[in-house]
Amino acid sequence: MKAEILAVGTELLMGQIVNTNAQYISSKLPEAGVGVYYHSVVGDNPDRLEDSLKLALERCDIVITTGGLGPTQDDLTKETISRVCGKKLVIHEESLNKIKNYFSRLGRQMTPNNEKQAYMPEGCIVLKNNNGTAPGCIIEMGEKAVIMLPGPPVEMKPMFLDYVMPYFKNKGAYSLKSVILRVFGIGESAMETKIMDLIDGQTNPTIATYAKEGEVTIRITASVPMGQSAEQILMPVVNEIKRRTGENLYSDKDETLDSVAAGLLFENNITIATAESCTGGLISEMLTDVPGISKVFMGGAVTYSNEAKMEYLGVKEQTLKAHGAVSRETAAEMAEGIRKRLKTDIGISVTGIAGPGGGTDEKPVGLVYVGLSSEGGTITKELRLSGNRKKIRTITALNVFDLIRRHVLKLEIDL
Amino acid sequence: MKAEILAVGTELLMGQIVNTNAQYISSKLPEAGVGVYYHSVVGDNPDRLEDSLKLALERCDIVITTGGLGPTQDDLTKETISRVCGKKLVIHEESLNKIKNYFSRLGRQMTPNNEKQAYMPEGCIVLKNNNGTAPGCIIEMGEKAVIMLPGPPVEMKPMFLDYVMPYFKNKGAYSLKSVILRVFGIGESAMETKIMDLIDGQTNPTIATYAKEGEVTIRITASVPMGQSAEQILMPVVNEIKRRTGENLYSDKDETLDSVAAGLLFENNITIATAESCTGGLISEMLTDVPGISKVFMGGAVTYSNEAKMEYLGVKEQTLKAHGAVSRETAAEMAEGIRKRLKTDIGISVTGIAGPGGGTDEKPVGLVYVGLSSEGGTITKELRLSGNRKKIRTITALNVFDLIRRHVLKLEIDL
Repeated sequence: MKAEILAVGTELLMGQIVNTNAQYISSKLPEAGVGVYYHSVVGDNPDRLEDSLKLALERCDIVITTGGLGPTQDDLTKETISRVCGKKLVIHEESLNKIKNYFSRLGRQMTPNNEKQAYMPEGCIVLKNNNGTAPGCIIEMGEKAVIMLPGPPVEMKPMFLDYVMPYFKNKGAYSLKSVILRVFGIGESAMETKIMDLIDGQTNPTIATYAKEGEVTIRITASVPMGQSAEQILMPVVNEIKRRTGENLYSDKDETLDSVAAGLLFENNITIATAESCTGGLISEMLTDVPGISKVFMGGAVTYSNEAKMEYLGVKEQTLKAHGAVSRETAAEMAEGIRKRLKTDIGISVTGIAGPGGGTDEKPVGLVYVGLSSEGGTITKELRLSGNRKKIRTITALNVFDLIRRHVLKLEIDL
Repeated sequence: MKAEILAVGTELLMGQIVNTNAQYISSKLPEAGVGVYYHSVVGDNPDRLEDSLKLALERCDIVITTGGLGPTQDDLTKETISRVCGKKLVIHEESLNKIKNYFSRLGRQMTPNNEKQAYMPEGCIVLKNNNGTAPGCIIEMGEKAVIMLPGPPVEMKPMFLDYVMPYFKNKGAYSLKSVILRVFGIGESAMETKIMDLIDGQTNPTIATYAKEGEVTIRITASVPMGQSAEQILMPVVNEIKRRTGENLYSDKDETLDSVAAGLLFENNITIATAESCTGGLISEMLTDVPGISKVFMGGAVTYSNEAKMEYLGVKEQTLKAHGAVSRETAAEMAEGIRKRLKTDIGISVTGIAGPGGGTDEKPVGLVYVGLSSEGGTITKELRLSGNRKKIRTITALNVFDLIRRHVLKLEIDL
């Protein structure tokens, strides 16, 4: 089955928000045997929505819309699609009651425009919204179907998982299975050159590489009849690529580098604390995004000023004077200081110049030192990064997570 | 001029990445007199790309593609579009030399697949890539044009700003000007009800509301002849909406709440330090995303464990025992502790249960206390939030930034 994801909302075309819904739905559909062939976005305009819907129904079997189901006047999706599909809108009592309850539970008054959300296309399958007021629905038309979901991701995602994914099960004949390999420390073209002979021979599975800041992702995808295992097709290729990427491979499960590092700390019960300067809390923020992390993460210090580095980490004044805040020596004392203060197995440190200001000839923007202190001693690593502030901070954090990974797994560390 | 943004890349259709490029380009084009009417995404497939390009050229004047210009085999955009437009690909010596230099500067070997990037459609305008290897280009065809940009945002964005935006200047007859008002603390349907009479009467300017976690954005857009001021059309409506949103309005310049809070600290030279538990560094990370923040941000502590709360913030053991780590009392001592230790004007604290685990009947997931300590005393606020871990952390951070804003501006604070 071929699907198109059609997002409705002028706020998308004005660039006010990013279409994360299309990404989320796309990441899930293949396992239900549905291939995503197109994404499209139109504004809150009935004519263009009508044209886009007709085109989508021509070139795909399934059209999933997001957005435009809410209470406000520019929410036109349900009205427009029902008209195109020749369905009347009728009141759905259960939904109306749910909306009324929603407001009374919150102790807020329900404004009348909220009632509009309870009118549904005649004969549709209503999809309950357990996280908001606008229900979704499925209109079936022979072999084709239009599925309407609300726009806010916090409402759309659970509705999609709870009702749409099960709907697709038993519908698909083939399913796509992917293995995602993630690699840190090799560029994209170098990576492709390493595996070019495999890519050249590809039919099933297919191989594609994708580069993101500092990382390369390799996707190996096999197409197999529904219910059948893809192992035999996938694994020989996956294993060969793994062999060639060696220790740079950090995940074969599409995990992020931070969650891999956090997982290793969990599994090995290694406690950690962080001392950050130019990353400003990004590393602790990413670590603590993992539920239950309090088992191993004891805390961190964000020490922007020299005073904070001395007060909170015990960095020596003479070290700061002799070598500067951005130096191997300061990074080492920061890592050691946080480890000692919070009595952890590992202490992590970052000090650098994220820019755009603050750089000199000797210490340019992008110069960053990271440190890792453990029972076995303290290591520091110099990074020379390019890009804007955000990129420098992000790549620094990734380098720290890779350092943690290599330390825990006792892999080679290039200092 | 009508534009369509056509992204090329199977990684988008597989949900591996989000189409942030479409959002970025869309946010910029209106000021150059170009309206964005459609976004679309196709995979690395020449047939579907061809069909999508033809459709886009039918319904729009300008087609901007992103992605598929790189060195690897699945990068097909330039080849496919040149074929559809009837243009031969010819070697562009300047680009070839740039690519060679790029690799020699990095001290890396250039793999042969990189040469492909220097072949450009005959007669096109070549767009230099100052942040990567793949140049972009503009193919003009009478009144229409196809603009090809690279996929990585770090390459695409500067190319778009430096070459594409200037290209559009003098081309458009009308330009769209928007004012974006941002409001914290009122729900979307309540907000719309407040301004329904204005929305009902809208033609020029138009008014649209958009809700995001905890916030409502109101976009007021006027269409005016190129070069003419939109003030007279926009401002009466903007001012009326401002009057109705009152102190909940935190920006009329499409700023984020964190940057507004940071800006207020800058302007008033108010120093700040943070003590975070369940937000794990998110607040300091967001604050330090602002360049130059080191002038007012002295540092922070991420105190997950009780030990860290005592060691780094001086929270009393008896307070933790009597009231628990998640309590008004602990929040107050955390804010006071960080303020005292780092000698700042303001100390900020957060302690709460972000979930999914750790909740009890008495202290459920979503219960969060935030504190603000200043010379005038310490205030704490109880939040009862719903949603997943990420949402709870994000809304907590927004509440803290709103608290800072209200404190600095001496507005009413609802505790």
